[in-house]
Amino acid sequence: MVKIAPSILSADFSRLGEEIKDVERGGADYIHVDVMDGHFVPNITIGPLLVEAIRPVTKLPLDVHLMIENPDQYIKAFANAGADYITVHVEACRHLHRTIQLIKSTGAKAGVVLNPATPVENLRHIIEDVDMVLLMSVNPGFGGQKFLTSVLPKIREVKKLADLYHPELEIEVDGGVNEETAKLVVEAGANVLVAGSAVFNNKDREAAIASLRP
Amino acid sequence: MVKIAPSILSADFSRLGEEIKDVERGGADYIHVDVMDGHFVPNITIGPLLVEAIRPVTKLPLDVHLMIENPDQYIKAFANAGADYITVHVEACRHLHRTIQLIKSTGAKAGVVLNPATPVENLRHIIEDVDMVLLMSVNPGFGGQKFLTSVLPKIREVKKLADLYHPELEIEVDGGVNEETAKLVVEAGANVLVAGSAVFNNKDREAAIASLRP
Amino acid sequence: MVKIAPSILSADFSRLGEEIKDVERGGADYIHVDVMDGHFVPNITIGPLLVEAIRPVTKLPLDVHLMIENPDQYIKAFANAGADYITVHVEACRHLHRTIQLIKSTGAKAGVVLNPATPVENLRHIIEDVDMVLLMSVNPGFGGQKFLTSVLPKIREVKKLADLYHPELEIEVDGGVNEETAKLVVEAGANVLVAGSAVFNNKDREAAIASLRP
Amino acid sequence: MVKIAPSILSADFSRLGEEIKDVERGGADYIHVDVMDGHFVPNITIGPLLVEAIRPVTKLPLDVHLMIENPDQYIKAFANAGADYITVHVEACRHLHRTIQLIKSTGAKAGVVLNPATPVENLRHIIEDVDMVLLMSVNPGFGGQKFLTSVLPKIREVKKLADLYHPELEIEVDGGVNEETAKLVVEAGANVLVAGSAVFNNKDREAAIASLRP
Amino acid sequence: MVKIAPSILSADFSRLGEEIKDVERGGADYIHVDVMDGHFVPNITIGPLLVEAIRPVTKLPLDVHLMIENPDQYIKAFANAGADYITVHVEACRHLHRTIQLIKSTGAKAGVVLNPATPVENLRHIIEDVDMVLLMSVNPGFGGQKFLTSVLPKIREVKKLADLYHPELEIEVDGGVNEETAKLVVEAGANVLVAGSAVFNNKDREAAIASLRP
Amino acid sequence: MVKIAPSILSADFSRLGEEIKDVERGGADYIHVDVMDGHFVPNITIGPLLVEAIRPVTKLPLDVHLMIENPDQYIKAFANAGADYITVHVEACRHLHRTIQLIKSTGAKAGVVLNPATPVENLRHIIEDVDMVLLMSVNPGFGGQKFLTSVLPKIREVKKLADLYHPELEIEVDGGVNEETAKLVVEAGANVLVAGSAVFNNKDREAAIASLRP
Repeated sequence: MVKIAPSILSADFSRLGEEIKDVERGGADYIHVDVMDGHFVPNITIGPLLVEAIRPVTKLPLDVHLMIENPDQYIKAFANAGADYITVHVEACRHLHRTIQLIKSTGAKAGVVLNPATPVENLRHIIEDVDMVLLMSVNPGFGGQKFLTSVLPKIREVKKLADLYHPELEIEVDGGVNEETAKLVVEAGANVLVAGSAVFNNKDREAAIASLRP
Repeated sequence: MVKIAPSILSADFSRLGEEIKDVERGGADYIHVDVMDGHFVPNITIGPLLVEAIRPVTKLPLDVHLMIENPDQYIKAFANAGADYITVHVEACRHLHRTIQLIKSTGAKAGVVLNPATPVENLRHIIEDVDMVLLMSVNPGFGGQKFLTSVLPKIREVKKLADLYHPELEIEVDGGVNEETAKLVVEAGANVLVAGSAVFNNKDREAAIASLRP
Repeated sequence: MVKIAPSILSADFSRLGEEIKDVERGGADYIHVDVMDGHFVPNITIGPLLVEAIRPVTKLPLDVHLMIENPDQYIKAFANAGADYITVHVEACRHLHRTIQLIKSTGAKAGVVLNPATPVENLRHIIEDVDMVLLMSVNPGFGGQKFLTSVLPKIREVKKLADLYHPELEIEVDGGVNEETAKLVVEAGANVLVAGSAVFNNKDREAAIASLRP
Repeated sequence: MVKIAPSILSADFSRLGEEIKDVERGGADYIHVDVMDGHFVPNITIGPLLVEAIRPVTKLPLDVHLMIENPDQYIKAFANAGADYITVHVEACRHLHRTIQLIKSTGAKAGVVLNPATPVENLRHIIEDVDMVLLMSVNPGFGGQKFLTSVLPKIREVKKLADLYHPELEIEVDGGVNEETAKLVVEAGANVLVAGSAVFNNKDREAAIASLRP
Repeated sequence: MVKIAPSILSADFSRLGEEIKDVERGGADYIHVDVMDGHFVPNITIGPLLVEAIRPVTKLPLDVHLMIENPDQYIKAFANAGADYITVHVEACRHLHRTIQLIKSTGAKAGVVLNPATPVENLRHIIEDVDMVLLMSVNPGFGGQKFLTSVLPKIREVKKLADLYHPELEIEVDGGVNEETAKLVVEAGANVLVAGSAVFNNKDREAAIASLRP
Repeated sequence: MVKIAPSILSADFSRLGEEIKDVERGGADYIHVDVMDGHFVPNITIGPLLVEAIRPVTKLPLDVHLMIENPDQYIKAFANAGADYITVHVEACRHLHRTIQLIKSTGAKAGVVLNPATPVENLRHIIEDVDMVLLMSVNPGFGGQKFLTSVLPKIREVKKLADLYHPELEIEVDGGVNEETAKLVVEAGANVLVAGSAVFNNKDREAAIASLRP
């Protein structure tokens, strides 16, 4: 069963509560929250206060993607604000195992994210400890980018590792996911799809979300 | 004439558009936007996308306070998103004159901010170039803190400098401003007051804003 | 009454407990602990574990001088380890007021330190909040350096500020203090003297300490 | 023949000389010295001065584990202070080959350390140049943590690489080593065991050390 | 056909135009330009102004090797100055795919560089996007170092990857290349050789360059 | 007697030796060398190798202006390369006194530089230790910028301090100096003028240099 996680990066920030309720009604499974600090990525987006503000608005799990340096410093704040999933970039974590344990100690589910050029090999000794792996199919920082097909062999590699070491692993893909690319990533092994403009640029969110399911 | 700048840090982020319209109706003069990157200050708040989203919602000037490292990197993005004022911390700017020129080159008004312990002496060679000086009366990073009276002699020092070198300078104070402290800072020479919880925690925003005017 | 604070930087680290007891017997008033992180200064020395280890050895106040970046990150650890005074460098603190409040919130006394070339002006808006000002009379990083006489006018400036705003302020001097220079700094207004080799290189610690008092 | 390297992180720092002599009498093979700078890891411990102080106290090799950023800056200081082994983290070294050559140029033996989640693949082009590989079986920063069994397949991978490219390589394991886990890591291929609390929390150091040998 | 790229690091910087014309006359294929910022490597060399100055002097492609942190910040400046190739270190790029796209968007050819100890695995998901891979056979920072034979198996690994995924890939080697080592790296699969002192320390540049061709 | 220091930033880098000889023949007093690392300022220029290359070309003192972070790391390299003056930015030096002593220990003359908005107060405790103060009359980073008149009161302040504490101090001004502005800065108290395009954009360097003298 493939899950759809609309990314609020493409929502209207002046009426975020309504936007979230709308995609919940439309059948979304998770709400994907893109946190950027202007240092790990060249954009600043939102922080714990905003997560706290949307927490009472929806029953869906909040899937918080930290595109920040030193994530350890903010993990508790996001967990307290109501994050259900917290994912961190391997490129930002020199003590990745500690960071994952810290996320789990808050009660949140933990995930790791790989940038497009980062080798899957980096997951080998952490895959059994995480609930989710997120593979970027664009370079993180901005919404509305084009899907990179080079993610497809990476999804297959992660799927193979997961079959060996962690069959329940959630494999999420983020970037350029639309009706067409959704099929490709699901065939390759992904089971959670982040979608920004594909959902929020369509007034009929139910149709938009349905179109992404295989 | 004293201006009131409600800080959206204390607004409800799930319905920000309505919150802003409400304080505009209540008589606010500026909308104060607190940008934090999790590096210059220990909190992450919002970025250019959110400024862009609230820009069409109000006719009030957006007074964007950058609590970030390397502000030069993001000044154009905030100006393009619709900022009318952009203020930067002297503690974050090694090339303060260049940063101020960069703000002005975008068409926005430029200001400098001083932390509570930072000497006013740092303004001496930049005061003629800026439109606004913002004095922190709490440590930046979070809403709802208590007013530091040590800001009062600093306001007087800035007022004296402004009388000498830049009589039209706007002198703004941010932190713990309420009915009682508003009087003190205005007497000392401030003419723009940032107020967060004093405005947004009161359902009657008109009354709240009126109560801050001397 | 002038206080003497032997610096453990010049003690024998293989028998630190005995060294500290010896200077306590010799009449020391404080134990000065030099914490260096290899980033703020070009040397690494000791951390909280060592403070914890010497805490039960002496009844003297532990005067912990943090020569580290981001001191906020370690203030609680040093306070929990038993520090009585915690002093931080203005050159390392962009939010100096917050850092001082953090120290005081732990129950420890708080101080600020100025490097040899750093202007006294930086104390103006924090002097009422601190218990101690430490003026470096050498560049921090290593023991055994020669006293810089340029500290003398700075001591007088601080004394003048203290007379105006904080008469009970402790004014400490660190670097090259010996029998001869001790007189100069006390005349200028200092009332706490850090001494490293002048105390620990003399087998008769009582005589060594006595010789530093005016 | 398995070597035991007691870590001074668990010793009494107020009488370090005696502690070290005690484990030397108890049969220790190396003295393991944990250097932390508060930047690479979230703790500050000790530096070159302390290594210099313990150098004359023991004839055992000092095995200095640098958990610091920019280790190149401090390698000479530790070598001059008497380090026999100097090990550096691959996560802290962008020019790992240069760092290893720098260690060897001082006459010390050189090693590389891998954090729990760091792939063994990183050793492939440096394994022939080093004398030791240290695998972390806890996240570095503090003593007294629980052994991570995920280190066991990593030890086997390193052993396989060593058999191919460097049969005399010392394979050291650090973290949570006790009577029970010692067996596992030795079976997997390790031949140097770091032990902190397992040695220093037991008054009979000879028994403690003996219990760790397979 | 093997190409020779003399590195200006070994040229006479007081008459760089003549030096470059001389190696062009001598048969050089590319001019290799070593850019160092004193942060990624422990040396500062040259920047965009110098590239701009030598651009009109030669028709050879300028092969600009960025040994700098945050290369994204300077890629446009080097492209505008006339760089034909721009290569960046994987050790300096957390968003390697974005950096490569940025280079290509300027019209320049893009390459990635690996330090001596960095695994070839890091090329797996970027090799199809780049025009060149540069393998360091010394540690970057200074001219005149000795060739590291450990680069030879790495060249073979890259050649194998290139045969699978990108047959036209240019494989460049930099460091200690001379008449003798040139043969080895070409046999292993390299087709572009950087040479500094081997070319510029020989007054007869034609002979020097010819001697490097297999 | 006013000295003229042509800045090589505006020279032709492909024939730097000739350019320098030309301004020496034209009457220049110093050669001003602008070192930028791409971190302290947003440009990378040249390093020690280039200083070494131009050292034998001229008898004039080389006045090396370090616009770099952590200047301590490169001071010896520039001194060994032949620098006669080395100046560092107060904005880049947390241990300014140590940095100045380090420069003097190499035998070079030492100076400090202030950015346009940086207060003169920062010189108070270092002015007796330096040979030169350099005041920026543009923001450092690029040649060809327009003179900032706000430097004039700063020159007067420095002159007053120098009269009190260091009458032989050289007061240098850098940025936008031409025939017209040269008069102003000399009247205000400067005695060394850096000039880039005003010298190198004029084919008759003798006339250009002469025109700058009052």
